[in-house]
Amino acid sequence: MINIGLIGYGYWGPNLARNLAETEGVHLAAIADTSADRRNAAARRHRGVAVCGDGASLIARDDLDAIVIATPLVTHFPLAQAAVERGKHVLIEKPLAGSRAHAEALGALADKRDVCLMVDHTFVYNGAVRRIRALIDSGDLGELLYLDSVRVNLGLFQQDSNVIWDLAAHDLSIMDYLIDARPVAVSADGTAAAGFNQESVAYVTVHFANGFLAHFHVSWLAPVKMRQMMLGGQQRMLVYDDTNPSEKVRVYDNGVDFDVKDDEARRQILISYRTGDMYAPKLDRREALSLVTREFVDSIEQRRAPLTDAAAGIRVVALLEAAEVSLRAQGKRIPV
Amino acid sequence: MINIGLIGYGYWGPNLARNLAETEGVHLAAIADTSADRRNAAARRHRGVAVCGDGASLIARDDLDAIVIATPLVTHFPLAQAAVERGKHVLIEKPLAGSRAHAEALGALADKRDVCLMVDHTFVYNGAVRRIRALIDSGDLGELLYLDSVRVNLGLFQQDSNVIWDLAAHDLSIMDYLIDARPVAVSADGTAAAGFNQESVAYVTVHFANGFLAHFHVSWLAPVKMRQMMLGGQQRMLVYDDTNPSEKVRVYDNGVDFDVKDDEARRQILISYRTGDMYAPKLDRREALSLVTREFVDSIEQRRAPLTDAAAGIRVVALLEAAEVSLRAQGKRIPV
Amino acid sequence: MINIGLIGYGYWGPNLARNLAETEGVHLAAIADTSADRRNAAARRHRGVAVCGDGASLIARDDLDAIVIATPLVTHFPLAQAAVERGKHVLIEKPLAGSRAHAEALGALADKRDVCLMVDHTFVYNGAVRRIRALIDSGDLGELLYLDSVRVNLGLFQQDSNVIWDLAAHDLSIMDYLIDARPVAVSADGTAAAGFNQESVAYVTVHFANGFLAHFHVSWLAPVKMRQMMLGGQQRMLVYDDTNPSEKVRVYDNGVDFDVKDDEARRQILISYRTGDMYAPKLDRREALSLVTREFVDSIEQRRAPLTDAAAGIRVVALLEAAEVSLRAQGKRIPV
Amino acid sequence: MINIGLIGYGYWGPNLARNLAETEGVHLAAIADTSADRRNAAARRHRGVAVCGDGASLIARDDLDAIVIATPLVTHFPLAQAAVERGKHVLIEKPLAGSRAHAEALGALADKRDVCLMVDHTFVYNGAVRRIRALIDSGDLGELLYLDSVRVNLGLFQQDSNVIWDLAAHDLSIMDYLIDARPVAVSADGTAAAGFNQESVAYVTVHFANGFLAHFHVSWLAPVKMRQMMLGGQQRMLVYDDTNPSEKVRVYDNGVDFDVKDDEARRQILISYRTGDMYAPKLDRREALSLVTREFVDSIEQRRAPLTDAAAGIRVVALLEAAEVSLRAQGKRIPV
Repeated sequence: MINIGLIGYGYWGPNLARNLAETEGVHLAAIADTSADRRNAAARRHRGVAVCGDGASLIARDDLDAIVIATPLVTHFPLAQAAVERGKHVLIEKPLAGSRAHAEALGALADKRDVCLMVDHTFVYNGAVRRIRALIDSGDLGELLYLDSVRVNLGLFQQDSNVIWDLAAHDLSIMDYLIDARPVAVSADGTAAAGFNQESVAYVTVHFANGFLAHFHVSWLAPVKMRQMMLGGQQRMLVYDDTNPSEKVRVYDNGVDFDVKDDEARRQILISYRTGDMYAPKLDRREALSLVTREFVDSIEQRRAPLTDAAAGIRVVALLEAAEVSLRAQGKRIPV
Repeated sequence: MINIGLIGYGYWGPNLARNLAETEGVHLAAIADTSADRRNAAARRHRGVAVCGDGASLIARDDLDAIVIATPLVTHFPLAQAAVERGKHVLIEKPLAGSRAHAEALGALADKRDVCLMVDHTFVYNGAVRRIRALIDSGDLGELLYLDSVRVNLGLFQQDSNVIWDLAAHDLSIMDYLIDARPVAVSADGTAAAGFNQESVAYVTVHFANGFLAHFHVSWLAPVKMRQMMLGGQQRMLVYDDTNPSEKVRVYDNGVDFDVKDDEARRQILISYRTGDMYAPKLDRREALSLVTREFVDSIEQRRAPLTDAAAGIRVVALLEAAEVSLRAQGKRIPV
Repeated sequence: MINIGLIGYGYWGPNLARNLAETEGVHLAAIADTSADRRNAAARRHRGVAVCGDGASLIARDDLDAIVIATPLVTHFPLAQAAVERGKHVLIEKPLAGSRAHAEALGALADKRDVCLMVDHTFVYNGAVRRIRALIDSGDLGELLYLDSVRVNLGLFQQDSNVIWDLAAHDLSIMDYLIDARPVAVSADGTAAAGFNQESVAYVTVHFANGFLAHFHVSWLAPVKMRQMMLGGQQRMLVYDDTNPSEKVRVYDNGVDFDVKDDEARRQILISYRTGDMYAPKLDRREALSLVTREFVDSIEQRRAPLTDAAAGIRVVALLEAAEVSLRAQGKRIPV
Repeated sequence: MINIGLIGYGYWGPNLARNLAETEGVHLAAIADTSADRRNAAARRHRGVAVCGDGASLIARDDLDAIVIATPLVTHFPLAQAAVERGKHVLIEKPLAGSRAHAEALGALADKRDVCLMVDHTFVYNGAVRRIRALIDSGDLGELLYLDSVRVNLGLFQQDSNVIWDLAAHDLSIMDYLIDARPVAVSADGTAAAGFNQESVAYVTVHFANGFLAHFHVSWLAPVKMRQMMLGGQQRMLVYDDTNPSEKVRVYDNGVDFDVKDDEARRQILISYRTGDMYAPKLDRREALSLVTREFVDSIEQRRAPLTDAAAGIRVVALLEAAEVSLRAQGKRIPV
């Protein structure tokens, strides 16, 4: 039985608490939040779990084996650092830290203290995303050409970070999981609408050496909710629409064949809207977060690196930081 | 009665021919196309209209008052130049020309010869787009914050131009019509997938002095057809989905108010997916192209500039050219 | 503080338990279920709440003021009868009972014992349905012409009742709430597909004296999930799509005017797909079931009839019973 | 070369004329319409084709081999009878005639005169419908359980027939093509909304001896356009949505297995929304009507019965007539 303490019971914390409470081999022992309201909410939902206002005192407890951190980004580093130094295993809500330097420092410290450091890249555990990875691995898509992602809605503006750190963190973690090639540069544009001090609409482009191009549109200022990713391959293309309740992944049997010499023939092939069947595979519908908490526990018990380890967290933070630099440099392409 | 000759009966020409034939005050007298197949198709559909293989001989005819050009982009300039020099009024399929220099030369020549030079920015005549302009003018949207446009499908790859010249020309002409402020710079990224010699997936960002940001995603390599534009205003936001058969424009009564001092209250407002009603206004459903041919005839008869005059054509070509320059310069921001 | 015991922790019981636990003024004291697995699940989710295997022993407890029943339909009557006779207030999952006679007997008994008897017609408390009622009351829709309802999916086949008792109960309760006129007859057709002993696909038609017609399609055997209701009025029509995450109710400003004498003009009006604006009003998004438990407590405390009282429950059961009779009589129209 | 005259250039006639003009081996020689406006429209679109106001004079012409009839339903019989008696081949817009007696008389007369009598059941030639037939034939769907069809929109009210004769004629012709078993009875309900003299909303149920059930919802009074058919089989189910531009047919790999004895296990299987993959096959996208005119010409030339021959037309009219009888008899089940 692993005794776990949770710091942060705001937006994401309750989801983590619920999943931790239902994960076999876990005892959710304590929850910390600075807000009295949130502590009351935690106490009501989780009778018998200790609540306190102070993450530090929770880290100080000897009976806790692991700490789960779901607090504002700026506090990820100090809280995680303190927990790792106390020898606790740590699971941190994405992104791992607010800067590449902090992310790397945490990774090094965890190695030194020989504890598990895991980042909650939730979407990597999603049935749709794992199925897409399987489609790539099977060769069904052929050589990959581009990835286009849209994650927009009318969202909660955050005071301490812009929309890239908030939303693109999800999509970059998906890209990091799906695409084996490593990016060479990042560029970004955005606008801080309506006098707000943070960008609320932004575009991030990730460049690869082989011509593969990934592009991300994120926004807190869209009138409709969209969660769509297109992945184009030489053999087939797919659309992953996370708002579709039943057919999240659609695979289109559309091949583009440039060997055709006869221009008229090529015209015939390409001018048609769809040239093959479409299918929507059955997906694992388990809640991704339940697999996240399971993986955290398993990697602690099996003394192995989790799927979304510190290295993955560092790679994503490096991209976010480069996007931020580009944003401040008129969209200049920043090497990573 | 205005006698008109049409050059080009490929993809767009038949639509122009059909609308010209049904426009009152117009006599479609002749159609030219270099392909015998296309000439046969023209002759079958338009019995009694002369067909020929040569645009030049059609321009040479004294009985024609006006020439409509629907040929590949590279031929726009020489054909239009010849026609204007012969004193013909000219309507050209978008974009006006393949370079800013050519577009400006055509505009100057038309002024000098005192003929009507019009560009077929079809979408400017679309009921949805005109309704959006009316919504902007009424102040319903409030101060405009951003425009985001997606125009993708599995499309016909063109040999002589990339996807920006082909598809973004539409969206930039819509932006030119809707947004009174003038852009200050353009940047673009893209990829020439699968060894093709032209970019088939591209992103164009148009920058404005006041912080307004416009972004365009165009692709010939998407598995699904999307034609969606979001326009965000301080008071309301709208989505224009051209693939929706019945509700192309949706206006969302979502205001973002940054005067709220209480963070909890703001959270309440923004965290909700929609905070107000949505409505989809009734639109003029007439075919846009019928209004294009009508406007061409009216501006000739009334000796006035058409709505989409040479100046509009030049502005759009200038943006396309800047996007092309940026594409060749690693996405550098190019002033316009 | 009202002490409540819940009988039945299968499909719907956990939702009732969760909402009862969060309703102010309620103490969820005990949960009964015949299945050990379900009792374990209840104990895990609701630490501190007593669990037992026997509804009768729970009814026998003196410390409980009210009983909530979420058990198979056949047990509604005996459990509710026992609870009411012990002077308990009772909330029963829809439908109230398995026959009109049982429903009426329960209503009479509750009157005699002066306790609150409420049926959980959940959808009556739904923000969309309440908004539709407000639209009717405001006169916006004009005279009502028809109601068409589709509630189909690939669902759990039930052993002890057919799809009408399971699914149409929802829609008939919505109709009972929305339509003030009372039905005069019911007819039904259905098929017991694949050798199953209960109808899994069925159609119910409810006839009104004034020509208003209501029709219900219910199915456990549809490949897609649909929850759609159309309500047509002389002035406006609406579509309520419960699967739409953001715009559940759409009101169409389509009037049908039969005063027009000129046939050509009428053709002009009617042949157009939409003749007016559409709007989707903002809805109360609170969970309907939280309002159900609130209404149960309020009506107990205020000693008044609940919105969905025994009379409403009896009316819906009468329609269900008539539909069943029609089903056994080749779709004959059965007076109610 | 077959010389064809077309009678009726109202709603459907122009589509027939366009397709006839483009069918190889056909010469569209003459068009008749009683309206001067419609004759002018015909003359404008079809230069060189004779127009006249009188179907009879067109039937009287010796140079015409075949007559195509696209007039109001009440005129189908007299016009077709006259044409067949003159030895003309005849293609009639659906439904074949306004009564079963008339339909059968036409069939007998055509046999006697040895001419081709074909009914334009357009949807039978549709790529989606033909693909569904192929899926049935392949056994992919397994034993068929039910067919559910919805064809509703805000439509043109017709003076001379109700919505069943107008819209259900399409769906019954599709059913006639897809389902080999023959119906045993029909029942129907409907309402003549808003004081109109014809039913504008109706439901038709078609009963089969083997338990298969077909149900049709048709309406001129719906705020949205829907064209959806569900076909449930023991092995797979499909949805045919004719308003979907790209994926009209979706096949769901959902099996229902009643052999499972363990109730808990069955619950597991059935409670899930989709238990298998979905796929949308590529369809033949040619215009169905072009295949109708092709089939008419081919069956004349090959002296064979067309796919949608008089017998098919009679079967559909028999169902329509039975539905009408049921409508006048309070929804009584009428044997066919």
